[in-house]
Amino acid sequence: MFKLTALTERLQANNLSSRYCKIMSSTMTDITQYIELQSKRVEQHLNTLVPTQEGPNKILFDAARYSLLGGGKRIRPILALAITEMLQGNVHQVLTPACALEIIHTYSLIHDDLPAMDNDDFRRGKPSLHKHFTEGIAILTGDYLLTYAIDLLVNENSLEPSVKLQLISTLVRQSGSQGMIGGQVMDLCSSEKAICLETLKNLHLQKTAALLTAAIEFGAIISKASAHQMNLLRQFGENIGLAFQIIDDILDVTSSFAKRGSDSISDQKNLKTTYVSLLGVQKAKDKADYHFQEAIQYLKQLPYETSLVENLANYMINRKH
Amino acid sequence: MFKLTALTERLQANNLSSRYCKIMSSTMTDITQYIELQSKRVEQHLNTLVPTQEGPNKILFDAARYSLLGGGKRIRPILALAITEMLQGNVHQVLTPACALEIIHTYSLIHDDLPAMDNDDFRRGKPSLHKHFTEGIAILTGDYLLTYAIDLLVNENSLEPSVKLQLISTLVRQSGSQGMIGGQVMDLCSSEKAICLETLKNLHLQKTAALLTAAIEFGAIISKASAHQMNLLRQFGENIGLAFQIIDDILDVTSSFAKRGSDSISDQKNLKTTYVSLLGVQKAKDKADYHFQEAIQYLKQLPYETSLVENLANYMINRKH
Repeated sequence: MFKLTALTERLQANNLSSRYCKIMSSTMTDITQYIELQSKRVEQHLNTLVPTQEGPNKILFDAARYSLLGGGKRIRPILALAITEMLQGNVHQVLTPACALEIIHTYSLIHDDLPAMDNDDFRRGKPSLHKHFTEGIAILTGDYLLTYAIDLLVNENSLEPSVKLQLISTLVRQSGSQGMIGGQVMDLCSSEKAICLETLKNLHLQKTAALLTAAIEFGAIISKASAHQMNLLRQFGENIGLAFQIIDDILDVTSSFAKRGSDSISDQKNLKTTYVSLLGVQKAKDKADYHFQEAIQYLKQLPYETSLVENLANYMINRKH
Repeated sequence: MFKLTALTERLQANNLSSRYCKIMSSTMTDITQYIELQSKRVEQHLNTLVPTQEGPNKILFDAARYSLLGGGKRIRPILALAITEMLQGNVHQVLTPACALEIIHTYSLIHDDLPAMDNDDFRRGKPSLHKHFTEGIAILTGDYLLTYAIDLLVNENSLEPSVKLQLISTLVRQSGSQGMIGGQVMDLCSSEKAICLETLKNLHLQKTAALLTAAIEFGAIISKASAHQMNLLRQFGENIGLAFQIIDDILDVTSSFAKRGSDSISDQKNLKTTYVSLLGVQKAKDKADYHFQEAIQYLKQLPYETSLVENLANYMINRKH
């Protein structure tokens, strides 16, 4: 249980609908309500950040909105918001940077879905961007979103120059060759090839945990956390990121057979090594649990009320889809 | 004719080969020697910025080097260097930012060559990146180079924070939806469709002139040019960019028939509207000359010795390949 009175005030100032403000006005007992509220908040902000635009490039903004506003768990921006809340930072200041992370995540999904990569025809129950538009537009939309995420950080007026630079530096580190893109390269090259658990762990650390950790670092940068606190938060991020990805591997197997039909996993994905293919479902669950516990242990060393972030981490790991 | 003694000293300090220093040690009469020297300098620096790296992502750096060090006119970084020289700015400081621009240019060529875009099998006489490696690696290498260009700017220690932010802001503006990517979207959508001269001009302004103008702005930012000077330099950039692209259109037609064989132009390119297809070769040449003269007229309003940049502009427009 955690109080979010200050947040509620800011939400009211931001003219969010009364229904959500009512939820926030009492002590919140349910993390799903918090997530629903923050998700709405992120989506409203994304909607204003990438408006429809008439003119010769209308298709670019339409395509960006198709992918950006087409659902998604909004885990990364919500993590950035929750970490900032926990560290008593300025939640208003972290909103645009948090959305920049969601924009980076979206560009990576667009490029990842392309035929030359994972070849996924569907994303969140809709045709993937290159199926709904064209492959060319999908490539350029990804490039645009990546460029635009940096644009948002460099031009966010509420931030000091040094904070902008820290955010941009963190973003390119965690989404570049030693982070997300590096993980995607490993992923692409390890298709149809057996890899060991250690390699798979490194792959997931880069491909998934890096951007989740960036979200956590964003909250810490905005809140001016100390170097020691930043270090604890990075360890939290890496472990929660690994747990999150292992659960993803498990859900890919269990929900595809139980609910979605086996064709919901692309051919390329079927050939990839996962925690499940290496360890089986139960031992993969144990691994996820181990990393979750590690994450919480780092989190609890912080001199703050950590239950909000703990509940959020718990939600991330116990999700059913 | 222009003296570059200070530059020569810096080049010697940077341990460039004695042959090039000898060229620089007397008054330089030939812009091609200047370009050859600066091109070498840029390539040596690019070589250190993107080294080969062992490990699971070796292929990413190999692919980046294949495209980045595989020739090219280096026009953008040389422009940034020459503008800085003209404005008596710190040429040492502009070298890495200038290379970041070449890295952005390279990522755009890699994505542009993909089958879903221009479908070019060759680039600078070699198989294009997706032919030499794979399409997936080409997509990710483009993403990496774009991310890495920002990384270089945000982490360039010789620059003040405010200068870093100005450079990053300029880069994303000129390479984003209102600049290079916007132009590529227009280009992609105008294939197989007749467009008018005004639309084509806007397309070229965004697709080509924007990044050339960014190079010019980079020199102006490093040299702390005034707002008025920056404005003159932007006008210079837009006009020289248009002239440069019109000459490209002309060379695509004339050199393909004369030298390269008509198959050197990809199918997609053959269907595109160009200045030549709209105006014919002679009137296209007149247009290029008009924009060149406009560019020089803006340049000459600057209170500096402009002959170096003028000669460089002249070289860009009168090149034969």
